Amino acid sequence: MTLATSSLLLSANLKTDSLNAGLLPIPNETSKLLKLIDNPNNPITTAKVELGKKLYFDPRLSKSGMISCNTCHNLGEGGDDGIEAAVGHKWRVNPHHLNSPTVYNAVFNDRQFWDGRSPDLEDQAQGPIQASPEMAATKEHVAEVVNSMDQYVNEFKDAYGNNVDITFEKITDTIGLYERTLVTPSRFDDFMNGNNKALTNKEKKGLKTFIKVGCASCHSGVGIGGGMNMLNVTATYKYMSTGDFKGDKNGMVKVPTLRNISQTAPYFHNGKIKTLKEAIVEMGRIQLGKKINNKEATSIETFLKTLDGRKPEIVFPILPTSSNTTPKSDLN
Amino acid sequence: MTLATSSLLLSANLKTDSLNAGLLPIPNETSKLLKLIDNPNNPITTAKVELGKKLYFDPRLSKSGMISCNTCHNLGEGGDDGIEAAVGHKWRVNPHHLNSPTVYNAVFNDRQFWDGRSPDLEDQAQGPIQASPEMAATKEHVAEVVNSMDQYVNEFKDAYGNNVDITFEKITDTIGLYERTLVTPSRFDDFMNGNNKALTNKEKKGLKTFIKVGCASCHSGVGIGGGMNMLNVTATYKYMSTGDFKGDKNGMVKVPTLRNISQTAPYFHNGKIKTLKEAIVEMGRIQLGKKINNKEATSIETFLKTLDGRKPEIVFPILPTSSNTTPKSDLN
Repeated sequence: MTLATSSLLLSANLKTDSLNAGLLPIPNETSKLLKLIDNPNNPITTAKVELGKKLYFDPRLSKSGMISCNTCHNLGEGGDDGIEAAVGHKWRVNPHHLNSPTVYNAVFNDRQFWDGRSPDLEDQAQGPIQASPEMAATKEHVAEVVNSMDQYVNEFKDAYGNNVDITFEKITDTIGLYERTLVTPSRFDDFMNGNNKALTNKEKKGLKTFIKVGCASCHSGVGIGGGMNMLNVTATYKYMSTGDFKGDKNGMVKVPTLRNISQTAPYFHNGKIKTLKEAIVEMGRIQLGKKINNKEATSIETFLKTLDGRKPEIVFPILPTSSNTTPKSDLN
Repeated sequence: MTLATSSLLLSANLKTDSLNAGLLPIPNETSKLLKLIDNPNNPITTAKVELGKKLYFDPRLSKSGMISCNTCHNLGEGGDDGIEAAVGHKWRVNPHHLNSPTVYNAVFNDRQFWDGRSPDLEDQAQGPIQASPEMAATKEHVAEVVNSMDQYVNEFKDAYGNNVDITFEKITDTIGLYERTLVTPSRFDDFMNGNNKALTNKEKKGLKTFIKVGCASCHSGVGIGGGMNMLNVTATYKYMSTGDFKGDKNGMVKVPTLRNISQTAPYFHNGKIKTLKEAIVEMGRIQLGKKINNKEATSIETFLKTLDGRKPEIVFPILPTSSNTTPKSDLN
C-alpha cells in the first residue's frame, strides 16, 4: 500500500463518539476503517491495490482501447463523469439514461448499481467492462489484454502467488479491491469522532435540519446513504427524458451516498436534477411529502458540504507497455 | 513545481560528453534541461505547471465534458493513445487518419503536428481542443468553463497575477507550459553524459548500427527526431487506408522523436505499422533505400529501447468542482 493510502486507512476512523452517538444511525462501535472496507475473501494488500489501480486506469481493457473505469468514474472529478447519463463505446448514451454514480465511498453501499442488483464492488466491476454502451469488451478480450503484457503477469504473481490464473474474474476482483480503498473521510467524520470544532455552528444547524426534516431516515450509515432503503422510481420517473429504467423488482432505486455530494452534480439516478439545492427540495417533496423551504434547503446544503472528503493522493499509474500480442483497438 | 518535477529538471542534463560527442548530432554544449524546455515569454513556475496539469486532465474543456488532452495523449501509456488514428467527439476518427503523437518530449520538436504547421506546444494546444473530431469545443466554451470555477480563477491569479484575463489563449498557453515539463531522461542520456556503463555492449552495438545505417541523419537532436527533416508523405501513402493527409506544402511529414518509441505503437503518421521492428525495416526501405536485415533491425531495436525514459511522477489532479454556471455537457 502506498504511504498515502496507509496513512488514510490509519488516520480515518469512522467511529462515532459518545457526544454525537444516536444523532444519526451510524454504527456506534469503534470500527477501524480498514475493517469496514476490506474483503475477507481477498484481503487488501499493497501489491493488489497498486495493480488494481493500473487496471482501473487502463483503457486497453475496453474494446476500443479508449475507455477505462476512470472515464466515467473520474477520480479527479467527484468519482463520476459530471454528465447526465453515461456515454461509452461508439458514443452511446446509457440506454436506461442512468447517471454514473461516484466510485468514492461506493464500498459503503450495501449493494451496487442503481437497482442494487450487484452485491459488491468486485461483482459490479464485471458489468461496465462488458456492457455494450460502456467498455464493450468480452471477458476473453480483457484476459487476453492483461496476459499479453509480462509486467501485468508478474504483478499478478506478486499479488496472488506464482500459480495465479489471470482470468477476467481475477482482474475485476482486483479492480474492485482497489475501489474499496477509495474512501474520503470528511470534516463530518471528524465531528462524529469527537472534534466538536470540526463543524461551524451553521453546519451543525444544517445537520440538525437534515435530521429534523427526515433526510437521515434514508441517508444513513457510514455512507450517509447507500443502504437498501430505496425510493420509488416512478415518483421521479417524470424527470426521465429517455430510457426504460424500472428500478429493482419492487420498482425501487438505491439511496446514493451523500459523501462528496457537492461534487457529483447532476443528481438523481437519471441525472436530471442540476443543482444540489434543487435535489434537496425535490427529495423532500417526493420522498418525505414535505415542502422544504429555501432557508431549510440552504441549511441542509451547508451541512452536506461538510461531507466533502479528503481524497487519497493518487500517483497516476504508468501502465505496462503493450506487446506485439496485445489485442488491437476495435472501434466498432 | 513539484519536488518530482524539480528533481527531474535538475538531474537530467541532456548534454553530451567528450566520450560520445560527435556520434550523434546532439548539442555538444553543457545545457541545462530547464533552459532547453522553458518558454522565455512565459517562464515555467510551480503555480503554472500545477494549474496546467489540472487543465490537461480536465475533460470539461471539451464540448462533451468527456475528453481531455490526456484522452489521446495518455501520460500513463506512452503519452499517446495506442490506437491507429485518434478518436474523439461523437466517436469520430481523425479524418486524415493521423496517429496521435506522444506528448512526452514533444517540447523538443522544432515544430508541432505531423505537418509541422504549429511552432510550439502553446500554439499546438489550441488545435485539438477546437477540432470537431477531437474535443470539439469553442474558445468561448473553454474560457467559460474555467471562469465558472472560483478555484480555477484563483489559481490563474496565483500563477499570473490578480489582473489576469483568463482567455482561451491564456488557458492553452498554460497547458502548453505543463507539456513542456513532460520530458523523460533515459539511459541513453546517462550514456551521453559520460556514464559508459549506462548501456550494455549489445545496446552500444545497436547505437553503432543506428548510426551506420543512417537513422541518425533524420532522428537527431535532443529529441532524437522532431526536427524539420521530413519524410515524403507519398512514400508511405500506400499504407493509408483512409484520410487525405498531404503533409506540409512540400508533401513532407515530420520526423517523430524516438524517445519512448517502444511504448508508442502503432507507428508512422498513419499508425499503420504495428511493430517497432517493422517500422525500422520500412524506414530503411522508404527513407534510406536500404534493405535492413533482421540482425540489424534487432540491433537497432535493442538500442531504441534505451530511449525508454524516466517519466515524471504525476499526482493525479483533483479538479475544481463545477459550479452551477459551469457549461453542461453537449454530446452532439
